[in-house]
Amino acid sequence: MDTLNVELGARSYPILIAGGLLGRPSVFEQHLRARELLIVSDTTVAPLYLPQLTASLGKRRTIEVILPDGEVHKTLANAARVLDVLVANRLARDCAVLALGGGVVGDLAGFAAACYQRGVDFVQLPTTLLAQVDSAVGGKTGVNHPGGKNLIGAFHQPVLVVNDTATLATLPPRELRAGLAEVIKYGLIADAALFGWLEEHLEALLAGDPKALAHIIRRSCEIKAAIVGRDERERGERALLNLGHTFGHAIESATAYREWLHGEAVGAGLVIAAAMSAACGVLDPSEAERVRRLVERAGLPTRVNGVAPAVALEHMRIDKKVLGGRLRLVLLRSIGAAFVCADYPSEALTRTLAMHLGGSG
Amino acid sequence: MDTLNVELGARSYPILIAGGLLGRPSVFEQHLRARELLIVSDTTVAPLYLPQLTASLGKRRTIEVILPDGEVHKTLANAARVLDVLVANRLARDCAVLALGGGVVGDLAGFAAACYQRGVDFVQLPTTLLAQVDSAVGGKTGVNHPGGKNLIGAFHQPVLVVNDTATLATLPPRELRAGLAEVIKYGLIADAALFGWLEEHLEALLAGDPKALAHIIRRSCEIKAAIVGRDERERGERALLNLGHTFGHAIESATAYREWLHGEAVGAGLVIAAAMSAACGVLDPSEAERVRRLVERAGLPTRVNGVAPAVALEHMRIDKKVLGGRLRLVLLRSIGAAFVCADYPSEALTRTLAMHLGGSG
Repeated sequence: MDTLNVELGARSYPILIAGGLLGRPSVFEQHLRARELLIVSDTTVAPLYLPQLTASLGKRRTIEVILPDGEVHKTLANAARVLDVLVANRLARDCAVLALGGGVVGDLAGFAAACYQRGVDFVQLPTTLLAQVDSAVGGKTGVNHPGGKNLIGAFHQPVLVVNDTATLATLPPRELRAGLAEVIKYGLIADAALFGWLEEHLEALLAGDPKALAHIIRRSCEIKAAIVGRDERERGERALLNLGHTFGHAIESATAYREWLHGEAVGAGLVIAAAMSAACGVLDPSEAERVRRLVERAGLPTRVNGVAPAVALEHMRIDKKVLGGRLRLVLLRSIGAAFVCADYPSEALTRTLAMHLGGSG
Repeated sequence: MDTLNVELGARSYPILIAGGLLGRPSVFEQHLRARELLIVSDTTVAPLYLPQLTASLGKRRTIEVILPDGEVHKTLANAARVLDVLVANRLARDCAVLALGGGVVGDLAGFAAACYQRGVDFVQLPTTLLAQVDSAVGGKTGVNHPGGKNLIGAFHQPVLVVNDTATLATLPPRELRAGLAEVIKYGLIADAALFGWLEEHLEALLAGDPKALAHIIRRSCEIKAAIVGRDERERGERALLNLGHTFGHAIESATAYREWLHGEAVGAGLVIAAAMSAACGVLDPSEAERVRRLVERAGLPTRVNGVAPAVALEHMRIDKKVLGGRLRLVLLRSIGAAFVCADYPSEALTRTLAMHLGGSG
């Protein structure tokens, strides 16, 4: 079993990585103090892994909330539903909320845990590649607002992240590809070698090769844990993790969270961010083309049909990266080196969006 | 102008205390960085102080949400309404939310500020005695759940607290008395001299004497700021500030937040906590009687008609002070010295509740 630590002083926590962890009672005996648990899952994941998990939890009192599957259900109303169940079952401040599922379940359950009694323990049990490499680590929780992605939320670190890589065996190919978008992102912002490795081993990853998947999960978690440890609340460096996300969030909210998986929108967002970097003259166009090609080979969209550039711009205006009236973008200097930029030609943004968005859906 | 500081490292903030502060543009020029503001107020306070406040805010962009007045409106639905307005007006992460009103407005607006974009700046402009001495300081924000008081919330410190003592001139006597309950609490937990001072000067306070009020506001804020500075997240000492509140919260939620002001419930809660301390043999009965008498002289209820002891106990079971299956109580050793106690005879609690609760409403 691989173990990484997110170093946040008194709020440090381990990320455990191995196949079969959900079926091991010792994992929870060793790392989970709470005796009363609320498990949040969804209608897709619960039938697959909930029985195994509850067996591993032993004699603890467990209550379950099963949400409908999908980004469109990551709402304040569903977070309120989780809170209602916590109150109705009289769970005390020393309880824990467990999220068993993908990013939607993790973000929503984490937000409910952050708000219940002003914060109770929270455990991430991610079952998608995207959640294992990205959303389960780092304490960003929240729900979507019709007006914008993740606009309602809290920083609330988990006390434990359990990446059971065996769960990826049941992951639909579309979800696997979506997760790869975030892995490509880590290569782009911090690790050119990882990006090169992805170029070489993409077929193995798409075929679900466990060793290849274990490698990218570990490396992604290492990069994220290090950045979060240095900048928990996104005062600086952590913003780099949003590469592709300002574009991606706009795509998701402009399509009412119904059409795109988050990772798919991030994939297209990475291509747009690279193209924008080239349009600004800071990234060599051949590098932007390498980004586009890898995203395309991963089976992810590289352009956005059915969303007009002006509509995307309007949605970007409410993104959390707006400061001093100016939308800040994460751009690339090279593969492996990203930076936050507020000082870009608006014309380059308009042109880049026009090249990648629009047309019929 | 009196200035106190709540010392929380990078999140330290000042509490300004003086008459007429809401009418002074310099206060906001000096202490408020944000240029885009959402002001949350209620239907009672807004007509009295909102015009003066917006004039003092100068050329900043201000948007207003006016909520109905009263504890029954401190709901997740109303917090969602504030969030909707923030999104609809595209306020960015460098905006600020200003709470102009009493504890209900402050708690709710603070919670919305905590959740919006995972946390934006928040300013407390309390206009009731209770909010000026207690709820506006310390960063506890939240809303009520039908099942329990303040069960949904966040720790989110304000960046500024402006106690304009001139606003107390328009405060209804019932609200003034409710605020005194929290001041009595500070005497009980930390300052026997303040308690004695209250016994001597109660008539001046009830008559609204500005000097007497300024004295208790300053002293209460000093005590609270010191405790919060040492224990922001209530790992230990801060729990003492809940003296009377476990009983008070049960009274409020058992009556659906419709009958009692928070301070009234705290007043009765202090009497019950003192009686419970005497019943456990840790407080001299004559001291418990001093507590009862001062609460009574302040015009606050000292017993609870219309709530059966068993109903109150049921509501106390969901209080945030339950840990390890045991409800912890804040009790008194003497006037000026409180402690957290999980090891009390249940029979003493039953008997104390039977003596103070029940009967017709």
